[in-house]
Amino acid sequence: MRHKTSMAADCGSVDFPVSVVLPAAGSGERMGLAIPKQFCSVLGRPLLYYTLQAFLSVGWVREIIVVVSQDWLQETSDILQHFPTPSRRKVTVVSGAPTRHRSIWNGLKAVGTGTDVVVLHDAVRPLVEEDFLRRIVVAAKENGAAGAVRPLISTVVSPTKTDRMLDHSLDRSQYQASEMPQAFRYPAITEAYQKCIDHDLDFGTECLHLVQKYAGVSAKLLLGPSSLWKVTLRKDLYAIEGVLKEELCKNVVILSDCKLSLSQRLHKGIQEKLSSEVVLFNDQEQLATTCQTITTLILTKSFPCDLEKTRDTISHVLEGTTVGDRSVLVLLLCGATPALDTMPRLFMFTQDIAEETKKHSVIINSVYVDSQASSDVGDRAVAMVISLIRQRDPAMSGQVFVAQ
Amino acid sequence: MRHKTSMAADCGSVDFPVSVVLPAAGSGERMGLAIPKQFCSVLGRPLLYYTLQAFLSVGWVREIIVVVSQDWLQETSDILQHFPTPSRRKVTVVSGAPTRHRSIWNGLKAVGTGTDVVVLHDAVRPLVEEDFLRRIVVAAKENGAAGAVRPLISTVVSPTKTDRMLDHSLDRSQYQASEMPQAFRYPAITEAYQKCIDHDLDFGTECLHLVQKYAGVSAKLLLGPSSLWKVTLRKDLYAIEGVLKEELCKNVVILSDCKLSLSQRLHKGIQEKLSSEVVLFNDQEQLATTCQTITTLILTKSFPCDLEKTRDTISHVLEGTTVGDRSVLVLLLCGATPALDTMPRLFMFTQDIAEETKKHSVIINSVYVDSQASSDVGDRAVAMVISLIRQRDPAMSGQVFVAQ
Repeated sequence: MRHKTSMAADCGSVDFPVSVVLPAAGSGERMGLAIPKQFCSVLGRPLLYYTLQAFLSVGWVREIIVVVSQDWLQETSDILQHFPTPSRRKVTVVSGAPTRHRSIWNGLKAVGTGTDVVVLHDAVRPLVEEDFLRRIVVAAKENGAAGAVRPLISTVVSPTKTDRMLDHSLDRSQYQASEMPQAFRYPAITEAYQKCIDHDLDFGTECLHLVQKYAGVSAKLLLGPSSLWKVTLRKDLYAIEGVLKEELCKNVVILSDCKLSLSQRLHKGIQEKLSSEVVLFNDQEQLATTCQTITTLILTKSFPCDLEKTRDTISHVLEGTTVGDRSVLVLLLCGATPALDTMPRLFMFTQDIAEETKKHSVIINSVYVDSQASSDVGDRAVAMVISLIRQRDPAMSGQVFVAQ
Repeated sequence: MRHKTSMAADCGSVDFPVSVVLPAAGSGERMGLAIPKQFCSVLGRPLLYYTLQAFLSVGWVREIIVVVSQDWLQETSDILQHFPTPSRRKVTVVSGAPTRHRSIWNGLKAVGTGTDVVVLHDAVRPLVEEDFLRRIVVAAKENGAAGAVRPLISTVVSPTKTDRMLDHSLDRSQYQASEMPQAFRYPAITEAYQKCIDHDLDFGTECLHLVQKYAGVSAKLLLGPSSLWKVTLRKDLYAIEGVLKEELCKNVVILSDCKLSLSQRLHKGIQEKLSSEVVLFNDQEQLATTCQTITTLILTKSFPCDLEKTRDTISHVLEGTTVGDRSVLVLLLCGATPALDTMPRLFMFTQDIAEETKKHSVIINSVYVDSQASSDVGDRAVAMVISLIRQRDPAMSGQVFVAQ
């Protein structure tokens, strides 16, 4: 997932060689989970997948060194299979070490010759914004080092050692939280790691501190976007899942083959509930020329309709546009036929389509609205469609829902 | 939601009067939302509801003062209607002020006479654990003040004022993040607020600092559980929703009226995927005597079965046990009848039950498993049931799902 901000002034490429080192060898004890957090599954993929995807989508990154512990080499190699070959070739996997700094040092040693600036990032911060990354890299080129900071969420206090009473609290306006990404001139960061002592490698936490102490380089601190947060606790997995799903709901396409009033209500409902941009097309050809990637598509139709034609429409849409993992397609049918008479046929049809389109990894659902039913049936149908596109649950692909 | 840890040694009541002040007058700008975060809806209720619920479940808390801005008085009063009268009587709502400290001061002035220790907590930290609250209150009684701390997630850095270069980074082992709850002897905290100057009231952030500076009381710092985190950003709403849903999935009851092998698979699947405790009953009477509150109930049955009897069973279970908002009941039917023949009848039945049990706010779904289908149909059915109990989506109540 690549997040773009609208800061046009920041656009443009980076014209010097940049490598990325991703330490991903931690054990994730804080999660209370059996597996390290970077390998926890979110929407069916390990968290590390999303971080890699973010960096692989940045054209000017020449290579990515992932540092993982011996036990997770195979899993990492499996993650890489999800990317096309040219992307995969940019990634080198190296073995980690017992501490974070030692792992980073392993990664730095694997950086290709000629790299000017090296970016350090956490595997557990999957939301990397290209514009901010560029600013960090440019600042590191100019200053030798640069790091992201965020305002402190809590006041920082210092307890007395003996009885854990409040000794003093820090003035929040004077301090900030050091986050990732950070970037360094390659000679500066390697000098720091060569000169630092074992105690730093075993107990240190901050690379900015190492380059300051051992390479005499003071880092530029840039205030980063709020998306820089780090998956630390178990609850953060829910947060990242929610954010990733929100992203998939950002652009919704409704293809309405008739002037159903329900299409308009759906349009309004989705905009309000999901803050999505919704485009309403009345013509399939129009859809094919306008959209590049579709993550959420709703087809509305009056029922009865020619289901064979509908099947063709769906096939055409899926062939003609880019859909991805977790894309969802909802067929919303509105008719005066009682739901009980419609269900069996619609169910068979939906299951067939789900079967046929399995290769696209698209989630297919139908919602049938009995237009003869009570007046709030339209609201219920809209609520169902919103649930389906928000949840986009593969276990529910091929199912039929009825509002009556 | 009341979180209990298993620290039996900590159990017991608090034998002095304790009041709680909940500042909830903030505007929540950081969320990027139109409404303050404490009023954002999570599982259909404002966040403040959950925080109030947590404190109202603690028997030894004598009163709760909620400080809200003028614009949100009505909404707060609506939230209180969800609680029974004796609980509501414990809550006083007072008007807030432009800054956090001024709002807290308003709340402190409304504390009832005789209160010994007053607890300050954030409305946006809904996961309050009674055992930890007790420890904070007892420590405040002994020391005059006490506050929760957590390890720092990020290194704290200080930038230079002029050019925002790294000046120095703090040794993470010497510092901690100050969290909530905090508790104070009532005379100490009121002395601090009476003596402090306008600058403190307008720009200060830390009550522990105020009592240290103005009342000469040094707070005891206690390391709190990880659940003390604060809803700060939009993504935290996803996290809290996930945690609340997880809580609702913690105890799952399966009522199996026959020796269906699917019941065992379901048992195993739910334990593995949701880390839930699953109890399997073969007898409805047994269920009625054993369980107090049921948030997740699955009835498994061979199909065809006597649906009228099933309807009676469901009515009995719902009358005889406590179910709450967002409780979910899944009827899992396993039969050799083709799905298409079964659907209409099962749909009518499920919709009827959903209609009848609306007053219980329970979500009702059916899953039909065509046992004649391919061998992995059982896995698909288990995956569907897990999705249904994890999502517990009211918009989907009354729907029928088919694994074939």
